Amino acid sequence: MSNLSDEQLAEIERSRQESAPTRRSVSEGLEAILYQAFPVLDHGFVRVVDYMGDDGAIVQAARVSYGRGTRKVTEDRGLIHYLLRHWHTTPFEMAEIKLHVKMPIFVARQWIRHRMANVNEYSARYSILDREFYLPAPEQLAVQSTQNRQGRGNVVSADEARHVLKILTEDAERNYDHYLEMLNHDENGEQLDADRQGLARELARMNLSLNFYTQWYWKTDLHNLMNFLRLRADPHAQYEIRAYADVILEIMKQWVPKTFEAFREHRLEAVTFSGEALKALRRMLAGENVQHSDTAMSRREWEEFLAKIDRG
Amino acid sequence: MSNLSDEQLAEIERSRQESAPTRRSVSEGLEAILYQAFPVLDHGFVRVVDYMGDDGAIVQAARVSYGRGTRKVTEDRGLIHYLLRHWHTTPFEMAEIKLHVKMPIFVARQWIRHRMANVNEYSARYSILDREFYLPAPEQLAVQSTQNRQGRGNVVSADEARHVLKILTEDAERNYDHYLEMLNHDENGEQLDADRQGLARELARMNLSLNFYTQWYWKTDLHNLMNFLRLRADPHAQYEIRAYADVILEIMKQWVPKTFEAFREHRLEAVTFSGEALKALRRMLAGENVQHSDTAMSRREWEEFLAKIDRG
Amino acid sequence: MSNLSDEQLAEIERSRQESAPTRRSVSEGLEAILYQAFPVLDHGFVRVVDYMGDDGAIVQAARVSYGRGTRKVTEDRGLIHYLLRHWHTTPFEMAEIKLHVKMPIFVARQWIRHRMANVNEYSARYSILDREFYLPAPEQLAVQSTQNRQGRGNVVSADEARHVLKILTEDAERNYDHYLEMLNHDENGEQLDADRQGLARELARMNLSLNFYTQWYWKTDLHNLMNFLRLRADPHAQYEIRAYADVILEIMKQWVPKTFEAFREHRLEAVTFSGEALKALRRMLAGENVQHSDTAMSRREWEEFLAKIDRG
Amino acid sequence: MSNLSDEQLAEIERSRQESAPTRRSVSEGLEAILYQAFPVLDHGFVRVVDYMGDDGAIVQAARVSYGRGTRKVTEDRGLIHYLLRHWHTTPFEMAEIKLHVKMPIFVARQWIRHRMANVNEYSARYSILDREFYLPAPEQLAVQSTQNRQGRGNVVSADEARHVLKILTEDAERNYDHYLEMLNHDENGEQLDADRQGLARELARMNLSLNFYTQWYWKTDLHNLMNFLRLRADPHAQYEIRAYADVILEIMKQWVPKTFEAFREHRLEAVTFSGEALKALRRMLAGENVQHSDTAMSRREWEEFLAKIDRG
Repeated sequence: MSNLSDEQLAEIERSRQESAPTRRSVSEGLEAILYQAFPVLDHGFVRVVDYMGDDGAIVQAARVSYGRGTRKVTEDRGLIHYLLRHWHTTPFEMAEIKLHVKMPIFVARQWIRHRMANVNEYSARYSILDREFYLPAPEQLAVQSTQNRQGRGNVVSADEARHVLKILTEDAERNYDHYLEMLNHDENGEQLDADRQGLARELARMNLSLNFYTQWYWKTDLHNLMNFLRLRADPHAQYEIRAYADVILEIMKQWVPKTFEAFREHRLEAVTFSGEALKALRRMLAGENVQHSDTAMSRREWEEFLAKIDRG
Repeated sequence: MSNLSDEQLAEIERSRQESAPTRRSVSEGLEAILYQAFPVLDHGFVRVVDYMGDDGAIVQAARVSYGRGTRKVTEDRGLIHYLLRHWHTTPFEMAEIKLHVKMPIFVARQWIRHRMANVNEYSARYSILDREFYLPAPEQLAVQSTQNRQGRGNVVSADEARHVLKILTEDAERNYDHYLEMLNHDENGEQLDADRQGLARELARMNLSLNFYTQWYWKTDLHNLMNFLRLRADPHAQYEIRAYADVILEIMKQWVPKTFEAFREHRLEAVTFSGEALKALRRMLAGENVQHSDTAMSRREWEEFLAKIDRG
Repeated sequence: MSNLSDEQLAEIERSRQESAPTRRSVSEGLEAILYQAFPVLDHGFVRVVDYMGDDGAIVQAARVSYGRGTRKVTEDRGLIHYLLRHWHTTPFEMAEIKLHVKMPIFVARQWIRHRMANVNEYSARYSILDREFYLPAPEQLAVQSTQNRQGRGNVVSADEARHVLKILTEDAERNYDHYLEMLNHDENGEQLDADRQGLARELARMNLSLNFYTQWYWKTDLHNLMNFLRLRADPHAQYEIRAYADVILEIMKQWVPKTFEAFREHRLEAVTFSGEALKALRRMLAGENVQHSDTAMSRREWEEFLAKIDRG
Repeated sequence: MSNLSDEQLAEIERSRQESAPTRRSVSEGLEAILYQAFPVLDHGFVRVVDYMGDDGAIVQAARVSYGRGTRKVTEDRGLIHYLLRHWHTTPFEMAEIKLHVKMPIFVARQWIRHRMANVNEYSARYSILDREFYLPAPEQLAVQSTQNRQGRGNVVSADEARHVLKILTEDAERNYDHYLEMLNHDENGEQLDADRQGLARELARMNLSLNFYTQWYWKTDLHNLMNFLRLRADPHAQYEIRAYADVILEIMKQWVPKTFEAFREHRLEAVTFSGEALKALRRMLAGENVQHSDTAMSRREWEEFLAKIDRG
């Protein structure tokens, strides 16, 4: 993978070589991929840098038990499904994960809205950012949706894609060149002009565009991770943050496979019907041919309802 | 003030004309300035759009009382000082304020790190941003500090300032022109080219630089507002966010004058001495001539210590 | 109502007499009942002591608008429904309410688990608690449920009810007598024995049982209030906290009638189907006669599913 | 230690025997005591059931680094001191600890006020509580303080101590007997009377007094743990919760020794002077003989000030 430098890859490899005994719960699935960087978009990645707990720890916390828990696997599975189905969220708060994420700034701005997490971001007041910016793949360059005020429609023509990528590339390169010029630094961090001091980093950075990459350590508990995934792995989420959510879904599957299965069943694949939708549903189940005009649903809710029951 | 359009100013004025009776606590100071936009930086502002509680409500909450509270003013003042001095924070959580803020994106990125607040940001997925970007005043264009890795040093030369402002202006203008071009929109929101659909807003915005303005509704309680102000009205904070904190300090003074006075006394003007610093201080008070080498403080802490006791 | 002293009622009445003009949003429904104590259980109450915002303020925040918002009522209604249906929660965080609540300690212990709120509780380290404890009405004295490990079953016999109430009453009275004795205080706060100093309040209180009343100021935003109500107005919640949730539902209806209507529709009356339940549902709609053994649902989930579609 | 049953001790011992390799950061100090129960008060305990991170992980997060961090120990120490002194709190949020705690209910009620933590409490709706209640040691039975409205003064006489302990014991025993009687259960969970069903557990528990023990899993990050310790290991905290804080301080010392040292230096042993106190201090350092009347401090703040500089 090309999203890290050789030096960074070597540092990660060194961390992976070390191992020590622990009395704590260990997730075999997560140990196998610990520290590894999973590439996302053109320069980003997600990697797990630490974790606490596994499926067993959730069950143990739910029972406030003294030992590690020795019940049968099937009991644990049933309990986890029950907890998720009935929104008993506190046991899932008892497992924690810490990720190192590199992402475009506009993705970081959506991500940070999830407040129930701990964040330590790389500071462009302290350090100089790299010449790394996001360029969408041509198949991601879509027109504004005509139906959804915040979404994307069809992919633009090949010509238009070329034009857009030319703009994005040239502007990002020029803005970065000027960023270095204002800092009075070259690409290697050397001073350009011995007679100038260079603008403060906290000022120069304002010339960078929102597709430049930033990175942070992000730590959250499993309950809040599932909230994040439910919203960001959703088709309505912007593609670029969804790409991160999809990778984290795979990580979660390695970490807590039983909880992942229950999460898929009771959240990702679940649907909610409003009071009015439920009334319509019951009439349909009773054999009635229900039309939109027979209900109090808005046109938009009605269409969402039909899609849920596969009649859209 | 020029940071709002005539239409926006008229809308604010209309809101200010309306008035209705309420049984709630009323802060005369805040009512006087409600909805008004206080300019910050070149295009930003802060305005209060709602609030709950006043100094009396804090005291009332601290006493879990049935009425509005009828104690003497001096008792209230003493209680507020006592609460702040002893870090009894819950009564201050009982007052709330809601601000409408317009600020450069890089300021918003620092601001959002204060998680104990509610935020609703203007969405560039739904709407097109205006051609408004921050240009520092020449006296704010400073070189990188040589002592403080994240701070500013002296102001740059007039020549260099001109050069920096030229870069910032041209890059922002060009990036915005290209933003509109990709959207296939002109300045007035009209379609440019009838044969093109225009790139999705959620994509085109990535070409804007971090000095473009965004805006949000931000709501927090008085305890967390004081945390924000303590950190962001501090000389170590970046000037651009400090400019907002300074305006909010004035707003707080109008809102809860007694709490403001205690906050200044016990937070803004207060200093903390470590265990080692306290030992040195006691020896100095006993008449001893204490040197750095007599203590276990680091060089840097020693200098901070001397500055606190005015011997720096 | 008898849950307050004459003095407290007079203090509340005095607060209700006062009125002042405000430029803020005003909720007519909430102004009408501000400060009034709504009785709950035998000695408890809920009363609104302050609020911020109304239905219009939610819409205004969602639009990050400059004025108070002047759209048509039907548009506001549609937007509020849309926001709730699609879990856009931040606009609802922009309205805030502050309640004064008196409740048994065991209810307070369930209530406090909702962390996204501000609390200031009456302190039994500072003050002496009153001789007020909760005695369930006979129709609330139910046996342990045999189906639900945490619920109630049928009402106990009249004889057993009498016996239980005798125990609860005698134990609470005795424990309170001993509380005062250890404090060396009589009912009116007068010293009992001039030669004794009396045990510290923070110690003596440990002799009180969990049905004694405490009180607090509790402040939360509308989004978190709805979370509280969804969980605590639910039939699975313990009756005693549900009694409070039911009163607060009525308060919410006065405060933000449009949001209340959408909340009832999309939360209170809504149901969620898991992936497996949705599969079964679609087969039923296609006319298939689906049995439990045809699905991967647990027995318990299957029964919950049938209840949702009214075939339980 | 006698605060656990033989069965519980055996279960803990079994957990301690197991060990597995991990690639994560390991705290040797914490591994040595993992799962062990440290006794607190007469029946309580604290034990660590899981953790994430160590001193190195804090430094690693502060630097957003790729590897485990390989800087020199002295650099790490200096950085940790710097972070704590300047209230850079986010790196400390990157370490997490999970405790199993058993404590009297009135202690749990103070503890839960720290909201930035995850809690899963043993449920008295599901299960029957044990006959375990807190009885203060005679030397902890103090009279109400005459100076501090919420504190303790001198120890009561031996006679009065005997009397108080007699009351506390008899009331707790009786209330527990009645709890079992209402549940229709004997000490071993067997039904007492075959013709009665027994009151629901969620009701019967209300007869227990606040000194009965409860237990929970409590998980928090190091930043919030230090907040908890700063407030609860303080001499103004009630002795009973301070006893827990003191044990947790020792645990923290094993876990993150460098952070513990900095925490002691910059929080536990640090003092804060208000603006007025600082003015007085500077005049004293200049050789002036400052009296209370020369300052704007309240009498109480003046006395606190003198105590801080050892002239109280």
